[in-house]
Amino acid sequence: MAGKVQKKRDDLRARLIDIAEERITTGGIADVRARDLAKEAGCAVGAIYNVFGDMNDLVMAVNARTFKRVGAHVSAAVAAEPEGHPVNTLITMSHAYLHFARDNTPAWRTLFDLEVSTEESVPAWYLEELQKVFALIAAPLARIFPDMPPEDVSLMTRGLFSAVHGIVLLGLEKRISAVPIDQLEHMISLVFNHLTSTPSKK
Amino acid sequence: MAGKVQKKRDDLRARLIDIAEERITTGGIADVRARDLAKEAGCAVGAIYNVFGDMNDLVMAVNARTFKRVGAHVSAAVAAEPEGHPVNTLITMSHAYLHFARDNTPAWRTLFDLEVSTEESVPAWYLEELQKVFALIAAPLARIFPDMPPEDVSLMTRGLFSAVHGIVLLGLEKRISAVPIDQLEHMISLVFNHLTSTPSKK
Repeated sequence: MAGKVQKKRDDLRARLIDIAEERITTGGIADVRARDLAKEAGCAVGAIYNVFGDMNDLVMAVNARTFKRVGAHVSAAVAAEPEGHPVNTLITMSHAYLHFARDNTPAWRTLFDLEVSTEESVPAWYLEELQKVFALIAAPLARIFPDMPPEDVSLMTRGLFSAVHGIVLLGLEKRISAVPIDQLEHMISLVFNHLTSTPSKK
Repeated sequence: MAGKVQKKRDDLRARLIDIAEERITTGGIADVRARDLAKEAGCAVGAIYNVFGDMNDLVMAVNARTFKRVGAHVSAAVAAEPEGHPVNTLITMSHAYLHFARDNTPAWRTLFDLEVSTEESVPAWYLEELQKVFALIAAPLARIFPDMPPEDVSLMTRGLFSAVHGIVLLGLEKRISAVPIDQLEHMISLVFNHLTSTPSKK
């Protein structure tokens, strides 16, 4: 009997994530309202809070899927190219991130629209998805900087992810760098093409 | 008589910008509501729309002031250091931007919270303030890359601004790169210290 209740709970959980994902894919976080979700899932509003602590938890479950999609998209782009200079790998990955953001704007924005008050409130499975994306960046980076201490490679991995994210964010918002997408690609290439293991100050 | 009306209009405009600036400085864009502003300025709500097309125009006027403050803060940081390698100048500027964002978070966030639909809808005086910030970055960049075509220097200027913005944004939100501020500074230094005029692929 307990197993049956658990199964029903798990089914509702999965169904709610599916529904929320579809809404986030088309309309972003603004389209995720408890009342609408309950109606679509055929459950009471209270039932949502039985399976998710709050709406943030539900959005986070969708975000974990989106991070998986980002990772798959970036990996596929790298796999489609012959292995070359690690700088080229970073450029390919960054361009793939740009294209993902352009083609999946509401879902991509939701990754960053969610209010996260403290690092502790982020669940482990979420951080795991994030780590997988970081690992993709760290590999070519370690090849470019073979002598860099691992903690600096890790810091630079986060730094470059954030840097590319900033270029994509302001670029797609046409706010600061209102340039066509091929110019954004060139912008990313320019930055990476001048990133070398030789310190700039000698 | 017409001059008197114009003067009254100008005074109200200036007063409304002052009030909105104070609100944005403490609470960000969410604290800018027409009704509250009218009450504080001692005017009718309709009077606001006589001097500003809409609330966005008013926020943009405050944002222009904030960009001026960003520029002044960054310039002061550069002026306080002995002239050195242009990479150091870029690092000093980026750290100053990080500190400004940390110390003026609501006003800084408002710079990017405003919805801007098209480049055309951005007034010329706003773009001018933005160009001044870009000019600060372009100068050391041109020294690092003396042989780079001007259009690439311009693209890289926007790219590096966006890159540093991304690092500051995700860093301060403790979202992707939850690291202390000195680690964020180190992250920025790491990226710039490996930016050289020599292409990474030979």
